[in-house]
Amino acid sequence: MKRLALAALTASALPTPTLAQRTPAPPPVMIPAEVTRLRDAALSDTTAWDIVEGLTTEVGQRLAGTEAEARARAWAVRRLTALGFSNVRIEPYRMPVWERGAESAEILAPFPQKLTLAALGHSGATPTEGLTAEVAFFSRMTDFQAAPDSAIRGRIVYIGNAMPRTQDGSGYGQYGTARFTGPALAARRGAVAIVIRSIGTDHHRFPHTGTTDFPDGVRPIPAAALAVPDAEQLERIAARGRPVRMKLVLTPRMVGLRESGNVIAEVPGSDPSAGIVLVGGHLDSWDLGTGAIDDASGLAITTAAAKRIMAAGQPRRTIRIVWFGAEEVGGLGGAAYAKAHADERHATASESDFGADRIWRFQVNLPASAAPIADRLQAALAPLGISRGRDKGGDGTDIAPTLALGTAAIDLNQSGWDYFDIHHTPDDVLDRVDPATLRQNVAAWTAMLAVVANAPESIDPVTNR
Amino acid sequence: MKRLALAALTASALPTPTLAQRTPAPPPVMIPAEVTRLRDAALSDTTAWDIVEGLTTEVGQRLAGTEAEARARAWAVRRLTALGFSNVRIEPYRMPVWERGAESAEILAPFPQKLTLAALGHSGATPTEGLTAEVAFFSRMTDFQAAPDSAIRGRIVYIGNAMPRTQDGSGYGQYGTARFTGPALAARRGAVAIVIRSIGTDHHRFPHTGTTDFPDGVRPIPAAALAVPDAEQLERIAARGRPVRMKLVLTPRMVGLRESGNVIAEVPGSDPSAGIVLVGGHLDSWDLGTGAIDDASGLAITTAAAKRIMAAGQPRRTIRIVWFGAEEVGGLGGAAYAKAHADERHATASESDFGADRIWRFQVNLPASAAPIADRLQAALAPLGISRGRDKGGDGTDIAPTLALGTAAIDLNQSGWDYFDIHHTPDDVLDRVDPATLRQNVAAWTAMLAVVANAPESIDPVTNR
Repeated sequence: MKRLALAALTASALPTPTLAQRTPAPPPVMIPAEVTRLRDAALSDTTAWDIVEGLTTEVGQRLAGTEAEARARAWAVRRLTALGFSNVRIEPYRMPVWERGAESAEILAPFPQKLTLAALGHSGATPTEGLTAEVAFFSRMTDFQAAPDSAIRGRIVYIGNAMPRTQDGSGYGQYGTARFTGPALAARRGAVAIVIRSIGTDHHRFPHTGTTDFPDGVRPIPAAALAVPDAEQLERIAARGRPVRMKLVLTPRMVGLRESGNVIAEVPGSDPSAGIVLVGGHLDSWDLGTGAIDDASGLAITTAAAKRIMAAGQPRRTIRIVWFGAEEVGGLGGAAYAKAHADERHATASESDFGADRIWRFQVNLPASAAPIADRLQAALAPLGISRGRDKGGDGTDIAPTLALGTAAIDLNQSGWDYFDIHHTPDDVLDRVDPATLRQNVAAWTAMLAVVANAPESIDPVTNR
Repeated sequence: MKRLALAALTASALPTPTLAQRTPAPPPVMIPAEVTRLRDAALSDTTAWDIVEGLTTEVGQRLAGTEAEARARAWAVRRLTALGFSNVRIEPYRMPVWERGAESAEILAPFPQKLTLAALGHSGATPTEGLTAEVAFFSRMTDFQAAPDSAIRGRIVYIGNAMPRTQDGSGYGQYGTARFTGPALAARRGAVAIVIRSIGTDHHRFPHTGTTDFPDGVRPIPAAALAVPDAEQLERIAARGRPVRMKLVLTPRMVGLRESGNVIAEVPGSDPSAGIVLVGGHLDSWDLGTGAIDDASGLAITTAAAKRIMAAGQPRRTIRIVWFGAEEVGGLGGAAYAKAHADERHATASESDFGADRIWRFQVNLPASAAPIADRLQAALAPLGISRGRDKGGDGTDIAPTLALGTAAIDLNQSGWDYFDIHHTPDDVLDRVDPATLRQNVAAWTAMLAVVANAPESIDPVTNR
């Protein structure tokens, strides 16, 4: 799952009735009947469900760089070929691989009991027999930052930093700092380990994993996330006012350089000079669930939409589907792709990596030459309950390096209200995907591709990233 | 949590508007103003929440016969004493103790992946290094029963037997057979192990544990429950038509005889000859969660209600609160209690062991001498949204041996609609308790005790169990 930039905070883009009344109605925009037909037919799509069901059942978890991710690539090639796409291929690269080990947490005093947690990606390890220390409590990241080193040295640091729900997922970027930078800061300040409250919004006993970063020169310490109920349990225990001693066993390890790769498939266009329309998501998942919403759904939605365009006849622009590798552990697939394809002309790039809940908004970053495309998108997407946001589009870890080359962007935003109940947890499995909203997603992406891939306008590079 | 008898199937007790119109209105029943006052004041109760929060935070899980259950008894004595009850004491007994070990499940072929599961109470063990075999699939218990032994011998048996939701929880008794008797049957027929779909109604990745029974002469085999999403994953994989090989590691063990006990407290009544009003729940819990709904809530509800009666002045009948031990593993505390107290006169017995969702119904098993009490209960409970069921009351594993001695029964039934989403899972923690419905429970139990403990009628033994 992508990290959302703070710039994505766009509550103001949700028109209130009053605002809508103040805004003059836009001139009517005609969209081709074919766009409407393709969009509406996609509401009966079954291809996307088949991809999510197949990948999560026949492969399951697929942590970046592992043999499971390799099996997923082989599965991807078979499935994309069977669907009739052209130029199906794997573009491999090598990467350092982190693997989970044993993990347990136990309060030894004052109230002995086990807690549920999961190591963060790139966590250091405790000794095999575990590590015991007193816990230093910080309800918020800012409390941790303000504390003296003496309160941290030799301790297991706990950071709460409870994340609220938001429609656009922007809470993740703000409250995720406890995970993104907390462990390295704790290591620098002499903590022996760190446990954080999961960066998630649910109240079930599922820990949320996710990557953290120890910069060069900072020795990784054991770093893990407690399930939210367990974090709150620990806070309740701490509130009793007696010192809390905790034993941690976390034995993940870096296993060296391994092969990963991007899987690519295409719908060749009739006009190679018009640029490539890049769509996709990421093939790797975290290892706790089967990555059904993060991000089998994104692969499924974008691929099912592309197949519908292909079946309707050759589009003007080539549609390139990329199932990126190694997103979760640092966007390695997206970086490898941009490097390998820097010389190609991309018209637009769009990624689906925010689950499969209802798409409620689209946003673009298009050059002036392509302004009418956004108006047609607005007309084509409105019947699906999708409104136009006025912030700049361009979201997605995997496509970020390609966007940075000057590629225009079109984002279709799923609701983030429930997304962080699930993502990066053991509960990210097929049961969490709603077939009805999955079909709404396919319809939206189909409409988008029908408009963009066949747009007569030139889609020039954008410079205002 | 109690096993619900099939006799509890009482959908017909839910009056439809038509039926209600056909039934003549009962004559108005007067209830003492004090009952109304106590009931309504209990809607602001905080004692019950404090008990649930305290026990689950300061003790956590408390598996029967373990040192954790012993810590829970010590906690109980402190808390019941602090609340002002009389005759607070532990009545110990000894019991054979089963403890969980390592547990993991892995599909080796055709699609390698791990599954989430938990051993059932009294499960046998695999070798330390695990056990690998082909899986024999049975969607329903009846399919398993009908299959030839040749399809079972040497296999890991899988039984689905998906349990539906019901208001009264009756699905548990019907569909729980896969857990109650499936393992022993599979062992007798030569299976090397058994995994069942959890006897639960949720779709999260929480396995539901619970006890099973291997009769004398049947050697226990490894027996575990898959989380529902994992069971459905296994079924999807099996539906692909290729043999499924599974590796199981389950290393629970019987650790010998240990001490357990019931914790008892009383509100002494003014008329010892009127019989004891017995209320309570069970102190032990399964080991995966902290037993917040099963059954810290039951202890809390009944105890908070008794405290309110105590605070209002001495009742006619002694109210005895029992926090039973070792319910989950076979009702050992309830049996020990009935044996130790067989010579005492109990007027009524009532247990709360079905969570803390809203109470929707009450049912009784009262002698003719006490018929007016049920009418007063109906009048007192109706304002809380509680209707009268016409089946015979008498539910609860812990009180069953006492009821069998001829004790009258009064049941207050919580909704079971969501109960089996949680019970016996790691998710049975404080977060699952709704403070508002907990207070409705306390109000109902307070009203019941206010009516029954002070009833002028004689409550004779009942014989029609």
